[in-house]
Amino acid sequence: MTLAEKAGQVTGSWGGSFREDLDVEDLVETVARDGIGAVAPFGWAGSLTSDPAEAVRIANRLQRVAVEESRLGIPLLLNVDAVHGHAYITGATSFPNGLGAAATWDPELLEDSAEITAREIRATGAHQNYGPTVDVGREPRWGRVFETFGESPHLVGELAAAKVRGYRGDGVGDPEGVLATLKHFPAYGEPERGEDASPVDISEYKLRNTFLPAFERALAAGADSVMPSYNSINGEPSHGSAAALTELLRDDLGFEGHVVSDWDGIRHLHEDHRTARDHADGVRQAREAGVDVASVGHVDHADRVVELVESGRLEESVVDASVERVLRAKFELGLFEDPSVDEGEVMETLGSEDHRETAREVASESMTLLKNEGVLPLEDDEDVFVGGPNADDMVHQLGGWSVSRDDGLPGTTILEAITESTDGTVTHAAGTTLNEPVDVDAAVEKAADADVAVLALGEGWYLHEFGPQAEAGVATGEWPTRSDLRLSDAQRELVRRVHETGTPVVGVLVTGRPLIVDWMAEHVPAILMAYFPGTEGGVAVSETLFGENDPSGRLPITMPKSHGDLPQHHDALAHPTPIGDHEHPDSYDPLYPFGHGLSYTEFDVDDVAVTDGSGTSSDDGGPAATVSVTLSNVGDRPGTETVQVYATQTNASRVRPERSLVGFERADLDPGESTTVDVGIDPSALGYFDPDRGHVLETGEYRFHVGERTESTRISGDD
Amino acid sequence: MTLAEKAGQVTGSWGGSFREDLDVEDLVETVARDGIGAVAPFGWAGSLTSDPAEAVRIANRLQRVAVEESRLGIPLLLNVDAVHGHAYITGATSFPNGLGAAATWDPELLEDSAEITAREIRATGAHQNYGPTVDVGREPRWGRVFETFGESPHLVGELAAAKVRGYRGDGVGDPEGVLATLKHFPAYGEPERGEDASPVDISEYKLRNTFLPAFERALAAGADSVMPSYNSINGEPSHGSAAALTELLRDDLGFEGHVVSDWDGIRHLHEDHRTARDHADGVRQAREAGVDVASVGHVDHADRVVELVESGRLEESVVDASVERVLRAKFELGLFEDPSVDEGEVMETLGSEDHRETAREVASESMTLLKNEGVLPLEDDEDVFVGGPNADDMVHQLGGWSVSRDDGLPGTTILEAITESTDGTVTHAAGTTLNEPVDVDAAVEKAADADVAVLALGEGWYLHEFGPQAEAGVATGEWPTRSDLRLSDAQRELVRRVHETGTPVVGVLVTGRPLIVDWMAEHVPAILMAYFPGTEGGVAVSETLFGENDPSGRLPITMPKSHGDLPQHHDALAHPTPIGDHEHPDSYDPLYPFGHGLSYTEFDVDDVAVTDGSGTSSDDGGPAATVSVTLSNVGDRPGTETVQVYATQTNASRVRPERSLVGFERADLDPGESTTVDVGIDPSALGYFDPDRGHVLETGEYRFHVGERTESTRISGDD
Repeated sequence: MTLAEKAGQVTGSWGGSFREDLDVEDLVETVARDGIGAVAPFGWAGSLTSDPAEAVRIANRLQRVAVEESRLGIPLLLNVDAVHGHAYITGATSFPNGLGAAATWDPELLEDSAEITAREIRATGAHQNYGPTVDVGREPRWGRVFETFGESPHLVGELAAAKVRGYRGDGVGDPEGVLATLKHFPAYGEPERGEDASPVDISEYKLRNTFLPAFERALAAGADSVMPSYNSINGEPSHGSAAALTELLRDDLGFEGHVVSDWDGIRHLHEDHRTARDHADGVRQAREAGVDVASVGHVDHADRVVELVESGRLEESVVDASVERVLRAKFELGLFEDPSVDEGEVMETLGSEDHRETAREVASESMTLLKNEGVLPLEDDEDVFVGGPNADDMVHQLGGWSVSRDDGLPGTTILEAITESTDGTVTHAAGTTLNEPVDVDAAVEKAADADVAVLALGEGWYLHEFGPQAEAGVATGEWPTRSDLRLSDAQRELVRRVHETGTPVVGVLVTGRPLIVDWMAEHVPAILMAYFPGTEGGVAVSETLFGENDPSGRLPITMPKSHGDLPQHHDALAHPTPIGDHEHPDSYDPLYPFGHGLSYTEFDVDDVAVTDGSGTSSDDGGPAATVSVTLSNVGDRPGTETVQVYATQTNASRVRPERSLVGFERADLDPGESTTVDVGIDPSALGYFDPDRGHVLETGEYRFHVGERTESTRISGDD
Repeated sequence: MTLAEKAGQVTGSWGGSFREDLDVEDLVETVARDGIGAVAPFGWAGSLTSDPAEAVRIANRLQRVAVEESRLGIPLLLNVDAVHGHAYITGATSFPNGLGAAATWDPELLEDSAEITAREIRATGAHQNYGPTVDVGREPRWGRVFETFGESPHLVGELAAAKVRGYRGDGVGDPEGVLATLKHFPAYGEPERGEDASPVDISEYKLRNTFLPAFERALAAGADSVMPSYNSINGEPSHGSAAALTELLRDDLGFEGHVVSDWDGIRHLHEDHRTARDHADGVRQAREAGVDVASVGHVDHADRVVELVESGRLEESVVDASVERVLRAKFELGLFEDPSVDEGEVMETLGSEDHRETAREVASESMTLLKNEGVLPLEDDEDVFVGGPNADDMVHQLGGWSVSRDDGLPGTTILEAITESTDGTVTHAAGTTLNEPVDVDAAVEKAADADVAVLALGEGWYLHEFGPQAEAGVATGEWPTRSDLRLSDAQRELVRRVHETGTPVVGVLVTGRPLIVDWMAEHVPAILMAYFPGTEGGVAVSETLFGENDPSGRLPITMPKSHGDLPQHHDALAHPTPIGDHEHPDSYDPLYPFGHGLSYTEFDVDDVAVTDGSGTSSDDGGPAATVSVTLSNVGDRPGTETVQVYATQTNASRVRPERSLVGFERADLDPGESTTVDVGIDPSALGYFDPDRGHVLETGEYRFHVGERTESTRISGDD
């Protein structure tokens, strides 16, 4: 294998519009001539095509070239950004984006959704997903918080691990599984001012206890690849950090897969972070740090690798190690057998009825009822006014990481689903786009005549810091990083005016993040958080409004009262209030707390008992404790509750959170039904990482909180 | 020396109201019986007395008891909180609080002010000041940001070092010098959500480059004592952190003085941080970590020390080391000669004419003109309406860390000073208290009749998290931690209504912190930032408004546009904007930037030249470079400019700030005058601390910015 061939194997390229436009012929040439080893020809924002049949043809053509026309005949790795389904391909199944998926608190269901996504990716001929997102979302201003599973390290870890299992299927050789890529390592979810890729300053204590636990669980679930974060951490850009990518990831966490760069992450080293002198120096830094594949390095990157090795600035053994990892991944995927796929099968697989049924299920379980003063569920015969910018917009309903134009998307909008659900009259007027009023008077007039006004408000399609939201009718410069988390002036005005008519307003928030909706929380009788619910989200919203679906979503992230209260997380560390304790507002005083969500029925929690708390520790592989509660549905409708267990360590060697989520379990109950729910508490969730001692579960008193109930017990730890 | 006597020497008590009320007889008893070694009988918020003669009598009485009635006859160390002058003593000189003092950018003047404060402290019989504050103020919501010298590590370091020199005078044995205590070590100035004592999470990189440089300079200036911060850092409360108080402070930074606890800082260990099991365990932790004196430990603390040693839980050698440090400090202060002071002299010293003249000078130099559209300076014959809650309130003008009742305070309010300054008619109506409207119509009517309306707005007296602001008429629970940095509704309404009369509004902000005044910035023609200017602040404001004083203050801290933009610092680290560079608002986009401040004249900066940039390095003790500029007063009035030099390291091993302040120099110029200003750039300001290599000044290209001008040069560093 020549040095150039090695350099090709560790370099990726793209098809479509990125730094330059590359078409299929360009790719054919670079694969044949330069031996480029990985390509993203579709399944991302600037793809060559969103047509599935075309995608298959491109995939097969590129593989044929790689196998038949390159000297060594090594097949290509094709990667995609299938963040919430393979949603850059028309007709594929689109699931709720990260926060909505997390609101289900349902790892099994997310595993199913990931299996479906993997199947659809493989059907188009690709093999590696740039997901799941394992970032802990601690900053609502951040334009990527919608991609995360929220603020809790434990919840994110459980859900990310489920997604990894789903993507990989049966693992090595499963023709319906894909490589799962954990992103963005190691700490990306709390950027300064919410600006994407802005610096993160963090202690080892916080890194290990807030950001790494989710990666550790997702790695344990078998992740194949890891992507570094764009940002610098403590002055070190992750893409150039040997401390992060080698010492921490490989030496300490034991990762044996391959590291793929984020797009342009290597170029940022000299262009933005300015820690490399020039591009070649950045390539050297990234490779020495531990990046194996330069995702969109193109020929330019491969050439630099050759230069660096030939001039003695980079050890060839560093490149060899990466080549080995890439070839192993390709081999394990079975690509050396036959990398081609069947053009006929793709249409049957994509967006099949059972796939979309699972998507609807995820969307339904994600519905989070924030407030309900008697108005919900709606009766079948009510006259409903439907307004707001997100009532009839499939693209906004999808959110980012999906096609940004509605060219015959499958699915149902909120307006369409409501129209199908009620025997009453449905009237509609948007009243406003996301930011600009549209004939508000007419909307208000219609609303005044209705029994109830459903206003679908919030945000539109956006893609972290990328520009194409303009295509989706969303002003750039304003989204996606937002220093103002309120609804736009136009939307607030619409709510106020409709509210003034006396018609009860049900606010439906279609949004990628927690918005500051203090006025609505005070004035309108019902608010439903719908997140970005995907193609099936309209049905999920409508079924929830009409009571066919009990809203079982619970907030995976805190909704703050005001910008001045940020950051607001349920697991803030304890701290003194030097004098005048009673004068201090609580540190955690949100509009709606983490874990909040109402049902249409009512649940009681009784008899909280902690068992197995003595003598059990992480060495056994068992839970550190089991928290058992008696859960009763004391209302008159069937419903679903998620038993959430929070813990407080009363005394510790380091300052610990006032309380933090350590376990949870969903339970469906009929009216009048009672059941015992056992929640196993993982030692790693209950304990913590002490920089001086590593993972530790300290012996002592722990308080477990479920709802309003608290039970204390002594846990024998491993210290 | 018995163990109990040792325990007494390392324990302090208080006179007045704190956890319990202790009167002079209580103190006499504890000094005689328990051998308590340090007392704070006055000069703090809950003092026994604010009367200077009474203070002297108490000091002398307590010393007599210590010397004559305790077995060993060791004199007492009396400490005070003379944060901006000895301002808890009636008649003492009160200087502007921290941010205002910093706005002068005048180390020599602050050194003078500290000398005066030291003289006044010693005149009352006390010897140790719990100051200066060396915290870098990075969080405007924080109720203690007014005590800091602002956001720049370099500016804070220069000013804190000047204060240390001033407090200490000629050092050992100077009868007019006091012990200078650096607080709060090591990182207190960026608490989460602005809540006092809330956790700080920080990397070594940021700790070393943002928070420690100022401590390092103040230590180099000879500081005698250091106070730990209330907060935890990375899960370790500073009061119990051997890493902070021994490894970092003593072993690494070479500190040889004594460490004094902050009030209740030791109790917080078990009560709030919960890293100690009980009080005794907290005492052990604090002592093993390196706390020498428990400031308000009282007998309880001393007893615990004895118990701990006797039961073998604490090495007696730990206590011995603290005793040694305390005795050395007392000896060096000359207390073993004669600790008594002259009751007659105190009245001559306190608030003497030359002392108050210096206070006026600091206040005048602090005046920071944020905006001026033609309305200032005022003419001598203008009819002036004076309104707002801070126009005629001496207590608010003082700000915190001073008596909170106006029982015959010296000084002049803004209203009084304006009344004396103009030949025109002065009318007055507050129009509002800090939070409640007071006959707004009457105020608006008077304003409408005037040529100009001066509205003194802002905040009232407050003392970080302490309660007594209620005495000063300020609602608690709202101040001092503020999640809303706008003026109160009542104040904003007053400004709007007066503005609507057409009378030009001059907003004067009497405030401890940057407020969000975006509406005023857009609408009213002039805004003067007055900070908490002290007793002489009224004169300083008036002389500035009428042009007798050219406003030479420059913001030592950024004034943000909105809460959602926080944090905003001039020295933010560089970072990528993954795609769509042109769509991103600047990371640093404040209402008024750090360093901003207008003069009544106009200055030009020309011919920026960098010399001595080659081959000079920190080893020489000389500057890393000298930046020379030609500064010209091209206006028609005399004025003062501060040449501010910012630097950008174009390429570095770690991500560095886009730009940061590295040097400054004030210059007074007559109209038409030009001068060359040489600004020496300290290697420690230009370089940085790399956790892998320590302090380093890297060889390479540096850009120096002065005003709009930039000059690049190659600096030969020490790497």
